[in-house]
Amino acid sequence: MKVIDGGVCAPKGFTANGINVGIKPGQTRLDLGMIFSEVPASAAAVYTTNLVKGAPITVTKDNISDGVAQAAIFNSGNANTCNADGIEIAKEMCSLLAEEMKIRPEDVIVASTGVIGQRLKIDPIAKGMASLCSGLNKDGSDSAARAVMTTDTVKKEIAVEFELGGKTCSIAGIAKGSGMIHPNMATMLAFLTTDAAISSEMLKKALSNDIEDSFNMISVDGDTSTNDMVCIMANGMAGNDMIVSEGEAFDAFSAALSEVTIYLARNMAKDGEGASKLIICKVSGADDKETAKVVAKSVICSNLLKCAIFGSDANWGRVLCAIGYSGADVDVTRVDVSFSSAAGEIQLCKDGAGVDFSEEKAKAILDEAEITILVSIGDGDKSATAYGCDLTYEYVNINGSYRS
Amino acid sequence: MKVIDGGVCAPKGFTANGINVGIKPGQTRLDLGMIFSEVPASAAAVYTTNLVKGAPITVTKDNISDGVAQAAIFNSGNANTCNADGIEIAKEMCSLLAEEMKIRPEDVIVASTGVIGQRLKIDPIAKGMASLCSGLNKDGSDSAARAVMTTDTVKKEIAVEFELGGKTCSIAGIAKGSGMIHPNMATMLAFLTTDAAISSEMLKKALSNDIEDSFNMISVDGDTSTNDMVCIMANGMAGNDMIVSEGEAFDAFSAALSEVTIYLARNMAKDGEGASKLIICKVSGADDKETAKVVAKSVICSNLLKCAIFGSDANWGRVLCAIGYSGADVDVTRVDVSFSSAAGEIQLCKDGAGVDFSEEKAKAILDEAEITILVSIGDGDKSATAYGCDLTYEYVNINGSYRS
Repeated sequence: MKVIDGGVCAPKGFTANGINVGIKPGQTRLDLGMIFSEVPASAAAVYTTNLVKGAPITVTKDNISDGVAQAAIFNSGNANTCNADGIEIAKEMCSLLAEEMKIRPEDVIVASTGVIGQRLKIDPIAKGMASLCSGLNKDGSDSAARAVMTTDTVKKEIAVEFELGGKTCSIAGIAKGSGMIHPNMATMLAFLTTDAAISSEMLKKALSNDIEDSFNMISVDGDTSTNDMVCIMANGMAGNDMIVSEGEAFDAFSAALSEVTIYLARNMAKDGEGASKLIICKVSGADDKETAKVVAKSVICSNLLKCAIFGSDANWGRVLCAIGYSGADVDVTRVDVSFSSAAGEIQLCKDGAGVDFSEEKAKAILDEAEITILVSIGDGDKSATAYGCDLTYEYVNINGSYRS
Repeated sequence: MKVIDGGVCAPKGFTANGINVGIKPGQTRLDLGMIFSEVPASAAAVYTTNLVKGAPITVTKDNISDGVAQAAIFNSGNANTCNADGIEIAKEMCSLLAEEMKIRPEDVIVASTGVIGQRLKIDPIAKGMASLCSGLNKDGSDSAARAVMTTDTVKKEIAVEFELGGKTCSIAGIAKGSGMIHPNMATMLAFLTTDAAISSEMLKKALSNDIEDSFNMISVDGDTSTNDMVCIMANGMAGNDMIVSEGEAFDAFSAALSEVTIYLARNMAKDGEGASKLIICKVSGADDKETAKVVAKSVICSNLLKCAIFGSDANWGRVLCAIGYSGADVDVTRVDVSFSSAAGEIQLCKDGAGVDFSEEKAKAILDEAEITILVSIGDGDKSATAYGCDLTYEYVNINGSYRS
């Protein structure tokens, strides 16, 4: 498996584009994007568990209930959520694209991100549709990835190449963060493409398995968005034998998928709103996977720990505290904690109690941009990794005036 | 019922004191406090649900298992938690006090608050004990309340007077916040005194009922502390007939207790670390109380909403979002949301969708220091109120360097 260029257009048969249509009046950044497959593709998606669901989620669910999609359209600047006519607007987005591209409106995935509770006007989208579609090209992943950004500071894009039965396949994805991020059985916006041939049923299975260790293991602020969605389109143009059951090919596909999603998830956490540092918590020694996951997520979600990491303060007691209230059944007298980064590794706690350590060395480790918190909770052989970020002045700044 | 002066010394037979002994070397603020009852008192306490429990919690649980206590001792600056010899240190604190006051060490409640995972040295406490005990006085509630403060900016203290069968009784309390606050079946440090005569069994019942609507309904940062505890001593010196069962007297006692605990809880939220505003969420129209509570707590716990309130940004979509992921079974198309404060009241959302509102008026309402978020979720007759605070630059500042 190797990382390649091209983003979501790297897989055969996919093109993309992103333009500015002024979703927010006066806004000049890219705010409308799309991804297109030459041929109808197997499609699967997972969605937010928030009871308040964006209108686009409802429309997309309906559209891909047959396991087929050929295009995805998405805008930033407005979430099209908690509006009286949200469903009609989301459907209209699909129809406008379908008409322009001569495909079925039911084969369009639609997504919106931005402020909740303000009407999304269809006019700018309708006016821009011809330009959006005519501009589709093999280098379009970059502009598409930018069009879906809100408070993100960097685009998230990756493509990998792998072999399936002698055929070269690729899987790619773009994604957006970066606040209201605490996925639960689904996640924020990520659009994945692949030219591998795989049935929609197996595609759904691969995606559902995958997110449990990728997007569902990150948190920026503990808020589960109303519009979270990960979708994938597989157009089969790589020419491999269609994957219709579990086995070697399915495993190879899943491994490549994981490479893409872990990269995107990790970078989403790293670019969390206001974040200055990526926090990775690796929990080992658990008797079962679920316990490891619950503990890892509890640690990266602690506001207090997030502030301490921001301040390079080796306050490991907050790690213990977060383990203690995680709800997991942990023997706290067996917990070891170390911090690690490019500057080295240091143990702070053994068997639930503090050990002497060099404050100077700890600070040097925490001054790095990627911090790993290593937690061992016993003798078990199960582990889990969660991804988060520090809590900074800038997070407060961004979210004190988001609508303006 | 009326509010009176004197804090925890207002009830007959109680004295208190707080001094500086230098728990943290070089620190000059008050850091060791105690409350004393002339006679042994009925005692009850509720504790943190965090699996990582401070050593003082373990010792106190043991000491008041017989329902009797005569004194409480507490320090700030060090939580005496996650230390190899924490239990011995906590027991030593009880013994030193008991020796000085000629009472049983098993009748002492002990509590510590501050940094986790650093050894609490007994020496400064031992040296200060004589001075702490000899200084006990009827005006000592103020210094005791100050001695338990950590990042609190104001002391939390109240006393109320009420009648029980023709006898004048009082209940009083002091408490400390102000970070790592997200109580769950128990809460941060609060010490309550009363001269009412009530059996330890009924005292426990009153306290357990009470905290569900007071301390358990506040959150500062979603972190449940390892050292949370609310304790109450009832010395019976008011001379009322001992309360030994439910009924009129128990209800009157519970009402007075609620007056004290709601005041302390509300002020703990208002003085949350870095907070500039108190956020109150009142949920009405629920079919059951639990649903109302879950929704109210989810709203005040949202980092995104907390930032918006800090910035006086009427981003009501974040209220809807927090309701949606609360886990409560809510029909989101029936949710109404209004904001209210001393500057007026404004509706932002009706039946789950936005209504037109004056941004100017909304901003004026949110510029006040106490903001109430009114949420109606249906036709039910159950309601609940939760207390929180905004998330500010100062919270990040305090918690980026807490140990220093």
